[in-house]
Amino acid sequence: MTTAAPGGTGVLDLPPLVDQHCHGVLRGELSAAAFESYLTESDRPAAAGTTFFDTQTGFAVRRWCPPLLGLAPHCTPGEYLARRRELGTAEVRRLLLGGTGIGTYLVDTGLPGDLTGAHETAEAGGGTGHEIVRLETLAERVAAGVRAAGEPGAAAEVFTAGLADAVRDAARTAAGFKSIAAYRHGLALAPEPPTTADVATAARDWLATGTPRLTDPVLLRHLLWLATGTGRPLQLHTGFGDPDLRLHHSDPALLTDFAHATAGTGTDLVLLHCYPYHRQAGYLAHAFPHVYADVGLSLGHTGPRATAVLAEFLELAPFGKLLFSTDAYALPELYTVGSAAFRTALEEVLTGWVRSGAWSETDACRIAALVGAGNARRVYGLSGG
Amino acid sequence: MTTAAPGGTGVLDLPPLVDQHCHGVLRGELSAAAFESYLTESDRPAAAGTTFFDTQTGFAVRRWCPPLLGLAPHCTPGEYLARRRELGTAEVRRLLLGGTGIGTYLVDTGLPGDLTGAHETAEAGGGTGHEIVRLETLAERVAAGVRAAGEPGAAAEVFTAGLADAVRDAARTAAGFKSIAAYRHGLALAPEPPTTADVATAARDWLATGTPRLTDPVLLRHLLWLATGTGRPLQLHTGFGDPDLRLHHSDPALLTDFAHATAGTGTDLVLLHCYPYHRQAGYLAHAFPHVYADVGLSLGHTGPRATAVLAEFLELAPFGKLLFSTDAYALPELYTVGSAAFRTALEEVLTGWVRSGAWSETDACRIAALVGAGNARRVYGLSGG
Amino acid sequence: MTTAAPGGTGVLDLPPLVDQHCHGVLRGELSAAAFESYLTESDRPAAAGTTFFDTQTGFAVRRWCPPLLGLAPHCTPGEYLARRRELGTAEVRRLLLGGTGIGTYLVDTGLPGDLTGAHETAEAGGGTGHEIVRLETLAERVAAGVRAAGEPGAAAEVFTAGLADAVRDAARTAAGFKSIAAYRHGLALAPEPPTTADVATAARDWLATGTPRLTDPVLLRHLLWLATGTGRPLQLHTGFGDPDLRLHHSDPALLTDFAHATAGTGTDLVLLHCYPYHRQAGYLAHAFPHVYADVGLSLGHTGPRATAVLAEFLELAPFGKLLFSTDAYALPELYTVGSAAFRTALEEVLTGWVRSGAWSETDACRIAALVGAGNARRVYGLSGG
Repeated sequence: MTTAAPGGTGVLDLPPLVDQHCHGVLRGELSAAAFESYLTESDRPAAAGTTFFDTQTGFAVRRWCPPLLGLAPHCTPGEYLARRRELGTAEVRRLLLGGTGIGTYLVDTGLPGDLTGAHETAEAGGGTGHEIVRLETLAERVAAGVRAAGEPGAAAEVFTAGLADAVRDAARTAAGFKSIAAYRHGLALAPEPPTTADVATAARDWLATGTPRLTDPVLLRHLLWLATGTGRPLQLHTGFGDPDLRLHHSDPALLTDFAHATAGTGTDLVLLHCYPYHRQAGYLAHAFPHVYADVGLSLGHTGPRATAVLAEFLELAPFGKLLFSTDAYALPELYTVGSAAFRTALEEVLTGWVRSGAWSETDACRIAALVGAGNARRVYGLSGG
Repeated sequence: MTTAAPGGTGVLDLPPLVDQHCHGVLRGELSAAAFESYLTESDRPAAAGTTFFDTQTGFAVRRWCPPLLGLAPHCTPGEYLARRRELGTAEVRRLLLGGTGIGTYLVDTGLPGDLTGAHETAEAGGGTGHEIVRLETLAERVAAGVRAAGEPGAAAEVFTAGLADAVRDAARTAAGFKSIAAYRHGLALAPEPPTTADVATAARDWLATGTPRLTDPVLLRHLLWLATGTGRPLQLHTGFGDPDLRLHHSDPALLTDFAHATAGTGTDLVLLHCYPYHRQAGYLAHAFPHVYADVGLSLGHTGPRATAVLAEFLELAPFGKLLFSTDAYALPELYTVGSAAFRTALEEVLTGWVRSGAWSETDACRIAALVGAGNARRVYGLSGG
Repeated sequence: MTTAAPGGTGVLDLPPLVDQHCHGVLRGELSAAAFESYLTESDRPAAAGTTFFDTQTGFAVRRWCPPLLGLAPHCTPGEYLARRRELGTAEVRRLLLGGTGIGTYLVDTGLPGDLTGAHETAEAGGGTGHEIVRLETLAERVAAGVRAAGEPGAAAEVFTAGLADAVRDAARTAAGFKSIAAYRHGLALAPEPPTTADVATAARDWLATGTPRLTDPVLLRHLLWLATGTGRPLQLHTGFGDPDLRLHHSDPALLTDFAHATAGTGTDLVLLHCYPYHRQAGYLAHAFPHVYADVGLSLGHTGPRATAVLAEFLELAPFGKLLFSTDAYALPELYTVGSAAFRTALEEVLTGWVRSGAWSETDACRIAALVGAGNARRVYGLSGG
């Protein structure tokens, strides 16, 4: 399977990958402008005189995807988009997702838009899907229900109880939870769980404002601790993302006190993205048994530099603590790019180390399989592999 | 032209470069000790038992410059300085500046010392010169005039009006402005423009102290917003520099709120230097259409590591958002080193990516021309190219 | 001597190395579990389903050490540990320490456990030993004596006087001092010396608590200034370590004001470890004549990535300001790994630069000898070399 997938040469003999953090793809047709807008983490237009095709992600799409649609690598964006329209959304999805070498998809379903769900995404790729539940989206949904019910007197109590139920219910089927507290407040949150009284006050205040968006730090912490209580792995956004972020407030090192506070709970923390603080994430994975780091988004957005970025992850992080993902979103192309970048970078890094005598070939193949699939299987309790 | 310039082999076929941030060179003769003192960003002597020639910049000077003066690369500092004296300042300047492949010079004229001006510098290099006006120097000059006028009662009003006029006047001819708020206060400034009342109070307080040096955060912010109002690009010092700096206060990520605040103004922000936070700068250039990053000083001071540093810039930053400069100052040698480092690093990075199939050759040449010249032409509205 | 030592090929012709920061090795036999626990900086168990052998340090031990004990590189951990037991602690120590190419050991004797002392460690390696005195351990020892004396009324005065004496006495024989303020409080300490009154109050308060562990920021600063007063080099823990640390509070950039404050004292500051802030450390070594940076722990824990990490150190830091160490602790294997990693990384980096023409071969050999031994000899005033 892996020899057919783009990226690498198959020398590491990877098992079907576990994509431990990804999103659905868009169901409808896309205009050229819309397509381009998904090549960046920014939610703003490209600067005048520039295009998002002139990025590592744009170049990586033009490297890896055209051959899967019967075109030459590095054809022009115009040629690629024309061929895409010709084939139609369904066929493009089938051709791209079918060739990634991914066997298991853990899909964060908390983003808006007409996106495929966990099982639908996995099916298109011929794999198995599981859901990752985004905590803030869950809380906002519960709050919307409470507001719609229109009993302002008991709203905070109803919300708090409803939220606890919703998290508990989600834990029954979800593979894990995800927090975007980095976006909503930054990671410099008080590490301990908030008191019941603090949660009640914060809930009352938030519901009173009528703002649908949750940014209250007490409630964000409450979500983290509700998730921690379920024992399911908790993914945390760290590092880069859209301009909504203050990058220096998303340094995973800011989670050190939270790592201390959760050390005895039996719940694993998975640091997502991490870049440009991935060495800091590697340190936390080195220092704390229950902390893991994800190499995904960083590799998909850095083109041929994925090799260097992955190598930096592999400095301090124990090899049993790194997890593959694509963080693909909206475009099936990003699944192709994310998996090809990972496969290429991993092969380049590890075979280089084998060549120099630093690693044995046996170890290289074993560690590759762990990072690509085995570690995620163990952390999320996935069968098979 | 470029094949003759040191660095690279001409395979990328670069157009004449636009050096978007540099300084004049010294007009007079230099002692050996004075020469050595310009090889470092430090304003202090070398440690006992060491020499600034034993740095990447020192080695780079000995790599690139001796052949232009008829000596072998890596000759001793003594041999090089003797040859330099023999040829004389004017001839050395002509030989070094004439061989850089730079066609356009944007010269920050705000440094003290007997330095060549924008046009004089460019002429020595056979190119065209434009001025970059340093905001703090401009404000200090206006304040000196006000103090000399000796009307303390109206001083603040006279200063504020005079400063607004001076910025407006400068914008008529200057290519852009530059702020060194990172040195004077750090980049954690309040992002919004200060109120007129706050500016008046701060101006009164500063003028009353008699200190020529401007460090007041309200006035520093006022300068940023005066410059932003002109529509000319605004260069901001970020990252490393002399020991006056608190490095962690010059992390460009601290400018995120300012980037949000200036997003609608039509003015471009150019993050200078950036190292060791150049990945953070790349993120801001990725996230905000009006944010650009300069690769200059980082390459000139890191010798053969310029290749790695440039590659890190090319991770998240869109390729239309990176700008070449030398940040050369005082020694014509630093123009040689800065341009040769850029040419060598760019060729090594891009041809490596072409060889691996990650980029097409056409794209590599196109992006090289953008980073070396085209992006700066577009951002500063320079003709030709 | 160096051609026989593992790592590199001898092409740089290194002199006997000065290991400017290391610790003793354990005197007794070790269980397999205990052995594994010393392969990480963490003080916690490996995550379920993982082993600390699956880290760069674990792989490096399996790369470099088995051949010295008559086994093939990359044999299994089980085979290695069995051979180790067979040979016995003394013989293993002799075989490993005898082959490192280290001639001088500066041993931090402030760690607990049944560890060899400075001279005993050096003797096992056939070299010369000197002591580095850990300030916090010294203060805690003085405090314990004061508490044991049981005169609570005068305790603070007795402690303060005893501490001053102890530092002065230590300076007579020690090669230098070491501070772990990064662990105990973080590096964002007020830069100036505390007043006598503040020290007296802080001493009284600490002694009253009965806590043996010193974490008071006033006393931590007092220790730094007592050490600075002796003129002996002062080593400061910066960057990564065990989970006790808040990584972002150990960024060496936080020491900038302390570097300013100590600039006139004649005492050198040596920034230890630094990772992942080693570029920041390089900047401080570039900016301040009395600041040095140590490349040790970062190389020993990053396996084949030591090459990249060392290259990053060699960007801004003047070549006369970098110092070799192993930071080895408890296992003689870590001396082997630290010195082999250094030798391999240095050779790979410098010969690469010679090959590309960036450096001359003469310079490369000269700088290698400085970083490996000469700089430390000069800074610590060691004879010979």
